[in-house]
Amino acid sequence: MAKFSPISGFPEWTPGQKMLEQELMAKIAAEFELAGFAPIETRAVEPLSVLTNKGDDKEIYLLNRLHDNADQPKEKSKEKEQLGLHFDLTVPFARYVVEHQHLLSFPFKRYQIQKVWRGERPQEGRFREFYQCDIDMVGAETLDVSADAEMAGVMLKVMRKLPLPQAILRINNRKVLQGFYQGLGIDRLTDTLRIVDKLAKIGPEAVADLLKEELGIDDKAVELILSLAKLQGGAEVIEQAKALGVEHELMTEGLEELSQVLALTEHLGGIEVDFSIARGLDYYTGTVYETTLVGHEHIGAVCSGGRYDNLAAGGKVPYPGVGISLGITRLLGYMFGRKLIEVETQSPTQVMILLNDAESRVKSFEVAERLRARGISADVYHTTQNFGKQLKGIQKRAIPYALFIEEDGYAVKELATGEQSKIDLDTWQPAPRERVQYKCNF
Amino acid sequence: MAKFSPISGFPEWTPGQKMLEQELMAKIAAEFELAGFAPIETRAVEPLSVLTNKGDDKEIYLLNRLHDNADQPKEKSKEKEQLGLHFDLTVPFARYVVEHQHLLSFPFKRYQIQKVWRGERPQEGRFREFYQCDIDMVGAETLDVSADAEMAGVMLKVMRKLPLPQAILRINNRKVLQGFYQGLGIDRLTDTLRIVDKLAKIGPEAVADLLKEELGIDDKAVELILSLAKLQGGAEVIEQAKALGVEHELMTEGLEELSQVLALTEHLGGIEVDFSIARGLDYYTGTVYETTLVGHEHIGAVCSGGRYDNLAAGGKVPYPGVGISLGITRLLGYMFGRKLIEVETQSPTQVMILLNDAESRVKSFEVAERLRARGISADVYHTTQNFGKQLKGIQKRAIPYALFIEEDGYAVKELATGEQSKIDLDTWQPAPRERVQYKCNF
Repeated sequence: MAKFSPISGFPEWTPGQKMLEQELMAKIAAEFELAGFAPIETRAVEPLSVLTNKGDDKEIYLLNRLHDNADQPKEKSKEKEQLGLHFDLTVPFARYVVEHQHLLSFPFKRYQIQKVWRGERPQEGRFREFYQCDIDMVGAETLDVSADAEMAGVMLKVMRKLPLPQAILRINNRKVLQGFYQGLGIDRLTDTLRIVDKLAKIGPEAVADLLKEELGIDDKAVELILSLAKLQGGAEVIEQAKALGVEHELMTEGLEELSQVLALTEHLGGIEVDFSIARGLDYYTGTVYETTLVGHEHIGAVCSGGRYDNLAAGGKVPYPGVGISLGITRLLGYMFGRKLIEVETQSPTQVMILLNDAESRVKSFEVAERLRARGISADVYHTTQNFGKQLKGIQKRAIPYALFIEEDGYAVKELATGEQSKIDLDTWQPAPRERVQYKCNF
Repeated sequence: MAKFSPISGFPEWTPGQKMLEQELMAKIAAEFELAGFAPIETRAVEPLSVLTNKGDDKEIYLLNRLHDNADQPKEKSKEKEQLGLHFDLTVPFARYVVEHQHLLSFPFKRYQIQKVWRGERPQEGRFREFYQCDIDMVGAETLDVSADAEMAGVMLKVMRKLPLPQAILRINNRKVLQGFYQGLGIDRLTDTLRIVDKLAKIGPEAVADLLKEELGIDDKAVELILSLAKLQGGAEVIEQAKALGVEHELMTEGLEELSQVLALTEHLGGIEVDFSIARGLDYYTGTVYETTLVGHEHIGAVCSGGRYDNLAAGGKVPYPGVGISLGITRLLGYMFGRKLIEVETQSPTQVMILLNDAESRVKSFEVAERLRARGISADVYHTTQNFGKQLKGIQKRAIPYALFIEEDGYAVKELATGEQSKIDLDTWQPAPRERVQYKCNF
């Protein structure tokens, strides 16, 4: 093999960074399970028709067999439906629910921590292969709006358990926006939503221009749309939205749902209404979420999602759902890349056994086994260099202890302090410490 | 969405089965870490040139962007190298080592638990998407044969911690076979290995025929090849191999390495020499492993690997390595499919709080939060059905406890016994039990 370069958009961590990622995912999973979400895992591929059913389809990676391409006529390989890698975990989950409905109890609460793939242009914090951590809940026929509150609450608690700057979870409701726009007499709702969704990126003036030029919306209506989008805060902004004077049944319903979500999550703090959030994906029908990190707003939403009442339907039963997704690779890529988190750990080894000579390897392996049997991660040094060199090698690997096999027993040296002492092999314990050592610089 | 059918070769578990898979992977990872293996994760894709560098390439899934296919001329999409999904974890690991060598300390011990993809024809226990659990160790320039012993020992201990029938780990050494064949004057070594590798499938007579007809090997040599392949057992078979009277330097070296591996793993039991093991992949150069389950030999090797001295090389430094891989999806697919393991658990929820009426949802959410704060997985019943129906729903989900919010306090019902009693919400604990309940039928 020759030299290799990274492939843009496909990040790989060091062993220590991977250990931290594992720890954080375990924390996330534990929090999900505390709230009664069960894990599932869906296959990485879906038929193209499932992937392109709703939402954006231009970023999909299609699969072809190397063998098919080379040896078989094009027609033959098209006999079966084309498969593509999933670009999120919501679409596969909706398919999983319909396919496995006879095995599930509804409402069904699941979490899913898996990689997804998108063929988009990579940039800071945007990858082509990345992990998502999702929770979703689907009901058979109906799903109470309390489910929408639960999503927000669980994700906010998760973000607070991770080594991250402070998170603000902002919510809106598509029904409010749609009702408001309909109340203004606008009929191109999707286009309006798409343009308002650009507010954070291009600012209110550019949004106003687009609404007028592209959709022919009049000045008064544009002004009201921007007035609504400016409202952010607690329960008081619901009254302020009503005070704008636009009325529509759907808007009333959406505001009522927002009130309920706020009431059920009030005790947590950190959840705000923000009427500027629209969310791009077509399949959202009610509550929508976006989470930003205070002081790091430029990286955009790190945790988002929403209510989808029409995504999954199997035969006569509709499965309304709501979900929220945490982009863990994006977060870690940012934290590692900016050195906001620095990992010191390189391996799980707690004790390295020094090697006296080639003949003592069997004895050294036995000593390692005795430590492992008591749950202590132990390894044997690989070559018979002099002890000074072996100790340097151990220090370089950030392993905390070295163990010497002596003629009359055993001794342990703590690398950080240089302290060395005789030990009883069957009772000695390393000082307790976290599995992963890391520093936060934020 | 319409009805969906499974895609052949892409298995999906129920939530309870997924929970068991997680438990087993956590056990496997813990055992790997005890022995000093650090986790890494490689991207799911590699350039085609890396994937086809060694070994079998016909099963590779290639990636194409949907967008590229539709809108761009074929030439443009070929500017960058074609990417494919990895078909094992050894080839990506070798690439990872060379690419990230400046960040690693050698010898480098890593484990990797990840999905791989192969476009081959699915059959029982053979999938197109599956998890592998690998350990590998690579040295810079040299790697002691004790590493080969470590692989076997760790994997055997892992297999013994999993709910599986008894495992026998069988080892051979490619040098023995190559030296033996060269000592017999055979020069088409790869072809000979390939044919001998079919022994378990087609039997000794068919192998003899192929060796004679395809390679023109004489009767005497074929007889000796089959005599060697018949030898199985402990250290004594090494002497029996020598007694066949074929001599070659490479064979002597291989037998010496086998002796050392046996000596370092003798205390474990369950490791046997088997001179019939050849392993298909081209990149193995020394020790090779295959593991079968007693009474379930027909499913083939469930854990295999070997030594590869030439797979990874970056510039002037060679990185000899050795690794072994456990096919966990294959194992679980077999155990679930034959009902050798039956999972009862459907979700992590320990307590379901009954819902008195719609208005008490906020109060019920608070109660759930108080339990979760003490590490108890709690959920709130979704609808205000009568208590009889709610209790039936809870039982159907295999959740052990139901909690009633009463006017003067709280009561808990254990579903299995029907026992109900008043509790103090802040001190009550569910009876300790394993996170996943399952039955083994073997």
